[in-house]
Amino acid sequence: MQKIVIINGPNLNLLGLRETQVYGTESFEAYFEKLKRVFPSVELVYLQSNVEGELINYLHAHGFDGSGIVINPGGYTHTSVALGDAIAGISSPVVEVHISNVHAREAFRQLSHVSAKCKGTISGMGLYGYQLAVQYLLQL
Amino acid sequence: MQKIVIINGPNLNLLGLRETQVYGTESFEAYFEKLKRVFPSVELVYLQSNVEGELINYLHAHGFDGSGIVINPGGYTHTSVALGDAIAGISSPVVEVHISNVHAREAFRQLSHVSAKCKGTISGMGLYGYQLAVQYLLQL
Amino acid sequence: MQKIVIINGPNLNLLGLRETQVYGTESFEAYFEKLKRVFPSVELVYLQSNVEGELINYLHAHGFDGSGIVINPGGYTHTSVALGDAIAGISSPVVEVHISNVHAREAFRQLSHVSAKCKGTISGMGLYGYQLAVQYLLQL
Amino acid sequence: MQKIVIINGPNLNLLGLRETQVYGTESFEAYFEKLKRVFPSVELVYLQSNVEGELINYLHAHGFDGSGIVINPGGYTHTSVALGDAIAGISSPVVEVHISNVHAREAFRQLSHVSAKCKGTISGMGLYGYQLAVQYLLQL
Amino acid sequence: MQKIVIINGPNLNLLGLRETQVYGTESFEAYFEKLKRVFPSVELVYLQSNVEGELINYLHAHGFDGSGIVINPGGYTHTSVALGDAIAGISSPVVEVHISNVHAREAFRQLSHVSAKCKGTISGMGLYGYQLAVQYLLQL
Amino acid sequence: MQKIVIINGPNLNLLGLRETQVYGTESFEAYFEKLKRVFPSVELVYLQSNVEGELINYLHAHGFDGSGIVINPGGYTHTSVALGDAIAGISSPVVEVHISNVHAREAFRQLSHVSAKCKGTISGMGLYGYQLAVQYLLQL
Amino acid sequence: MQKIVIINGPNLNLLGLRETQVYGTESFEAYFEKLKRVFPSVELVYLQSNVEGELINYLHAHGFDGSGIVINPGGYTHTSVALGDAIAGISSPVVEVHISNVHAREAFRQLSHVSAKCKGTISGMGLYGYQLAVQYLLQL
Amino acid sequence: MQKIVIINGPNLNLLGLRETQVYGTESFEAYFEKLKRVFPSVELVYLQSNVEGELINYLHAHGFDGSGIVINPGGYTHTSVALGDAIAGISSPVVEVHISNVHAREAFRQLSHVSAKCKGTISGMGLYGYQLAVQYLLQL
Amino acid sequence: MQKIVIINGPNLNLLGLRETQVYGTESFEAYFEKLKRVFPSVELVYLQSNVEGELINYLHAHGFDGSGIVINPGGYTHTSVALGDAIAGISSPVVEVHISNVHAREAFRQLSHVSAKCKGTISGMGLYGYQLAVQYLLQL
Amino acid sequence: MQKIVIINGPNLNLLGLRETQVYGTESFEAYFEKLKRVFPSVELVYLQSNVEGELINYLHAHGFDGSGIVINPGGYTHTSVALGDAIAGISSPVVEVHISNVHAREAFRQLSHVSAKCKGTISGMGLYGYQLAVQYLLQL
Amino acid sequence: MQKIVIINGPNLNLLGLRETQVYGTESFEAYFEKLKRVFPSVELVYLQSNVEGELINYLHAHGFDGSGIVINPGGYTHTSVALGDAIAGISSPVVEVHISNVHAREAFRQLSHVSAKCKGTISGMGLYGYQLAVQYLLQL
Amino acid sequence: MQKIVIINGPNLNLLGLRETQVYGTESFEAYFEKLKRVFPSVELVYLQSNVEGELINYLHAHGFDGSGIVINPGGYTHTSVALGDAIAGISSPVVEVHISNVHAREAFRQLSHVSAKCKGTISGMGLYGYQLAVQYLLQL
Repeated sequence: MQKIVIINGPNLNLLGLRETQVYGTESFEAYFEKLKRVFPSVELVYLQSNVEGELINYLHAHGFDGSGIVINPGGYTHTSVALGDAIAGISSPVVEVHISNVHAREAFRQLSHVSAKCKGTISGMGLYGYQLAVQYLLQL
Repeated sequence: MQKIVIINGPNLNLLGLRETQVYGTESFEAYFEKLKRVFPSVELVYLQSNVEGELINYLHAHGFDGSGIVINPGGYTHTSVALGDAIAGISSPVVEVHISNVHAREAFRQLSHVSAKCKGTISGMGLYGYQLAVQYLLQL
Repeated sequence: MQKIVIINGPNLNLLGLRETQVYGTESFEAYFEKLKRVFPSVELVYLQSNVEGELINYLHAHGFDGSGIVINPGGYTHTSVALGDAIAGISSPVVEVHISNVHAREAFRQLSHVSAKCKGTISGMGLYGYQLAVQYLLQL
Repeated sequence: MQKIVIINGPNLNLLGLRETQVYGTESFEAYFEKLKRVFPSVELVYLQSNVEGELINYLHAHGFDGSGIVINPGGYTHTSVALGDAIAGISSPVVEVHISNVHAREAFRQLSHVSAKCKGTISGMGLYGYQLAVQYLLQL
Repeated sequence: MQKIVIINGPNLNLLGLRETQVYGTESFEAYFEKLKRVFPSVELVYLQSNVEGELINYLHAHGFDGSGIVINPGGYTHTSVALGDAIAGISSPVVEVHISNVHAREAFRQLSHVSAKCKGTISGMGLYGYQLAVQYLLQL
Repeated sequence: MQKIVIINGPNLNLLGLRETQVYGTESFEAYFEKLKRVFPSVELVYLQSNVEGELINYLHAHGFDGSGIVINPGGYTHTSVALGDAIAGISSPVVEVHISNVHAREAFRQLSHVSAKCKGTISGMGLYGYQLAVQYLLQL
Repeated sequence: MQKIVIINGPNLNLLGLRETQVYGTESFEAYFEKLKRVFPSVELVYLQSNVEGELINYLHAHGFDGSGIVINPGGYTHTSVALGDAIAGISSPVVEVHISNVHAREAFRQLSHVSAKCKGTISGMGLYGYQLAVQYLLQL
Repeated sequence: MQKIVIINGPNLNLLGLRETQVYGTESFEAYFEKLKRVFPSVELVYLQSNVEGELINYLHAHGFDGSGIVINPGGYTHTSVALGDAIAGISSPVVEVHISNVHAREAFRQLSHVSAKCKGTISGMGLYGYQLAVQYLLQL
Repeated sequence: MQKIVIINGPNLNLLGLRETQVYGTESFEAYFEKLKRVFPSVELVYLQSNVEGELINYLHAHGFDGSGIVINPGGYTHTSVALGDAIAGISSPVVEVHISNVHAREAFRQLSHVSAKCKGTISGMGLYGYQLAVQYLLQL
Repeated sequence: MQKIVIINGPNLNLLGLRETQVYGTESFEAYFEKLKRVFPSVELVYLQSNVEGELINYLHAHGFDGSGIVINPGGYTHTSVALGDAIAGISSPVVEVHISNVHAREAFRQLSHVSAKCKGTISGMGLYGYQLAVQYLLQL
Repeated sequence: MQKIVIINGPNLNLLGLRETQVYGTESFEAYFEKLKRVFPSVELVYLQSNVEGELINYLHAHGFDGSGIVINPGGYTHTSVALGDAIAGISSPVVEVHISNVHAREAFRQLSHVSAKCKGTISGMGLYGYQLAVQYLLQL
Repeated sequence: MQKIVIINGPNLNLLGLRETQVYGTESFEAYFEKLKRVFPSVELVYLQSNVEGELINYLHAHGFDGSGIVINPGGYTHTSVALGDAIAGISSPVVEVHISNVHAREAFRQLSHVSAKCKGTISGMGLYGYQLAVQYLLQL
């Protein structure tokens, strides 16, 4: 597997801008540049949308071409049956990443419609979790 | 009623591509051609989107012109109050169709925000359910 | 499939008599005569009982002889595990019909012990739903 | 209203035989003789069955002829949607009676599918509750 | 038992004034005069308060002197553990009355902290329910 | 105790006919013949009905004559308050048997209205569970 | 509408005294003086009690004379069916105000027995919410 | 801390009168005399009311003068958000006492709106629990 | 604060067209013209979308420029964690408005993922609620 | 199968010592001697521990050597996922026994993490249940 | 009662080491020395274990010799049915102590399997709660 | 951080032995040898126990010496408040690993008492998850 697609969901475009005491001042775009240097021989693609249906479109677009997919569905994690169906419907392996530890947050974040349909989940490890997810997909 | 609009929700664009042992290898587009031959004198329109708000737009666009509407809201069935509100807000009669028997699936699929706002529901009868739904609307 | 058995559950013998503003003044027996004229080449059998165990007996009696079965379990839909077990235990295909849209009624009517064991369900389409159910069974 | 039908549900035929320290040693038949003497000018009819569907049959049989109906649905109170539907579907007024105070018993007896469909309910007043129920129906 | 105390809870002082299409235009005071004529040889006492603790005071005041007590706790029925404790703590027999059929109303009215502590309950029989409750207490 | 009555509930008359890969091809009648040979000196009676109220009638008929009773209430186990009341109301000891391990099945089968009223329960031990139940009753 | 009655419930008499970092050091009496200057031509009445039944008395007293009523039921919001019944029983329009944003507080504050019976609710806008509520009532 | 205020809630004025086999025949007034002899140098104040709002008034009256407060809220423990708010709003330390072990009683007594707002709770230790509570407040 | 952005969610574009007996025949666009005349010195911006992600985009676009924001999230109020996250993530103050009294509607409308993240909420005050919300933001 | 291991969980070492009016005065050790005489040709092993992890160790030790296992997990039945996992992870058949009828006890005893992983369950038959369990395992 | 056994559960061996801003820097061993000086004529025994089954062993060892027992079950309070059974099974009186106010902590700490089986509970009074518990046991 | 302690909970000692089609035939000991070769310069310690309290002991032993800790609590994940408390009470960073994707398993495995207290969680990535967890701890 030499192509990995990273898909970020709602509000992750604000990274580096909001709650900087929690998430730091680095934008995801800046982090993504670093990530490409960690995996120089891998084709890394980055997509982001705040629209639930667009995330589904991204999954469909890369779901049948042998890519590995890393997804952080943000708030849609807890409410989107359709996103879970999309992951179940494609053949590419999908890994879920959360920057913060969702288990230590509000009760409504303990329900996930996405996790059960992914290969695995990494949460609470900051942006470093994306690197671990890519690494996992590459060794499959 | 001589115009019928069929609206398919998220992941139904993958029909014929995913889980073919369950859903068969026929795409909805191919089925739609057959359906038009069953009802040669009816104007049949087909729309699909993975975006919840687009489905609402479709309902608004055809909700006041005397069309009959057949909708398969896919995964949004179980999570979309807004879609239910849209159906309640228009004057066209709406019938809900599900290809598989949702009652025989996961617990979270037993909740519907859409069914109560439709005239009726057909589930578990495969693609044939669309034909029955059209037939029902035509005899109203 | 050229024999179809229609089984009606509790209180459906009152059709045409009770809540006539909702259900109309036509009895099921009168409707059944019309239905036989729609499907002149099919052997149609009609059975009704208010007794849960009698409905199970009807299912057993016609469950192994290649009939198609249309059942409207009325109030037992929501409370009868035994009826669901009976449908699961026979080999004839069973379709569930509800005259009104049960999804638009009381909360306790949202639970069904029967739907998951049927091929499919039609609800909210009035007496016309029986015709669609027969049609579905015939094309199997 | 000069005809009153009393319908007793499951296990009430054991009255006077079981748990006599609670219910006393008087059978319902013996009590019914006394009750007829209290209302000498009223036609009192007594029916009992352990079969849920038979209770529905009794309600249908007396539900359209101007009778007043007193029903003690016993254990079916808490589980029978069909019985509640039957009461809602007939035109005779129905009063529910329970010999013991059901509110002081197990949690599952706090749910009733019947009470909401009756004119009113009397519970906890022993066999005397039947007399009060008849009296209420007569003054309507 | 020749003294009967009737205790009415919150908002029952509005009887005859509010929702007159439901409750009629008769005030409880007017009804109480009629009730006294039905039971000329019984000492009937009438108390009303909108204050939960006052109702408890009334129960204590008449709970140890051999009175029979009829209580309509209004909205406190569903929320007052303290009222239930007061009934359990006194030795006078207490009967609960509700004018309307609480079982046919909102879900939060299905919970009662009072009923289990009373001898019995009459609901849905209008003001006539008070007369039946008095009659029951007198024959104890 | 030398008379033992075995009462089977709904759908158990299909044994040997349905889901034979699970339940085998032996009917209960055939098994019952074998069982009589295991306990030659015991009067064994076998009753079956799909009607809930008939099962109650059977319990009443044998509930006061010193018989031991083995009951498999099938699907009524999970829904019948009336059946539980019948067992509580008779004086014969009752043992509950389930052929399959109900704990390993659907969530709605985890609720029993019957078990608490029986002396004990045997589940998951196939038809052999009936033999153990008879043996237990005989040594009481 | 030129008379507006403001009714404050339990603990609001402590305003300016408790949790001053949250609620400030201004008492409601001081704020009320300011409010009268904002609406010089309106008769403004202010009532407060910690007793649930007293709040009901206040509502009754001003519920039939054409006043507009602003109520902050404090902790009784979440527990008082009787207060909700009182609002439903009077004819004056009632608006509910909360100083803090109750939605951002404990789970038990998410349940309201009062809001559904009011014309509308304003929460989270501090003491300024009272001014907006008065303004709304005046423009009715 | 040399002033301690003991506040008893609903039905505790019946102590020694009701359920004497459980609570004994000693009234709280008699016990209070003994308690004063145990702490001769402490100013002990005793207040009781059956009115929820009066208990709040007592808490306000003694909540800002450096008293220690011992409260037994009786049945209001489980239903009064307003009482919990009052304890949270004052500055005096409050300790909750229950005579019986509430954990061994009905399910609805497992919910407390008061305990979380107190310094601590003592339950199940009879009247002796008041003495321990006073002792705790004195050593603060 | 001299710029206020009003964001309307799904189905609010149908205002004046649907359920006109409830909402009147005035479109939001027409109302918005009136609103601008009420606040002539304020820059008022109006945005509407049926797409959840578009509403998030609007919030991001105006969330860091010192605007005040009034949002009516329609049906997304009850289902959108992502929308709540967006409000929490921006620095502009946000006020939530609902035209109807959501507390008096279906149970699923009692849950809000948005309210806790806003400064405050106004519901049930019709279109006038928008004016009050703007007024509140201006006085901050 | 000629080796049977009986594993008793927490507090079963107190048998004969505690609640002797319920469980009798016989210790399990004494009963075990009798049991060995019932099955003279079977190797019977008896193990007991109050430590959850020790019970898991016992299951592992005898889970791969062809033994049949009878387990009474006592209070861990209702709380131990780990014990259920251990039973699922070994290859020896396991039968669960409870001396008392757990269905007739507290609500928290109705949940079992163990039963679904066993072949079957016997409850309520006293110490005799162990004998039946051994007998079942021997005939497998 | 002159022997008192204090049993501490999981993580209480860390006292003085963890979260010292909450629990202080004193270890339980140091506190225990002080406690012995408070009750010089009492035999005080101190036991601690992180193993649930060991705590049960301690209870058994001291449960029949006339000791009074003070237990702080730590996290097992909320999950251990077996511990509750052990307390119910011994004859020594047991008092439960919690250092912090568990009612003011997470929701899962509101459930206790232990409290109902103890004589009483003291929580939220810091280490001083142990002294009060001992004092209570001594005066029994 | 150059010392990493790996703690495995109940049933993980069976790895390679049970359900080999799922978990493979490799024991954890064998995998651990490989893992040491991946991190040759790190001191790796491996501990396993089936006893909940032993796992707590291990956490205490390594919780204050600057180690990083990787824990797979197995079945205790879902039931152990005490284990969660232990993780919260130590100062070493803890990462939780699950070999299988717990989100795709039984409902009772969706509750975790441990995850919220860890830095982060990795699940569903097989034994490779341990390597990622070690890598995460090393880069802290």
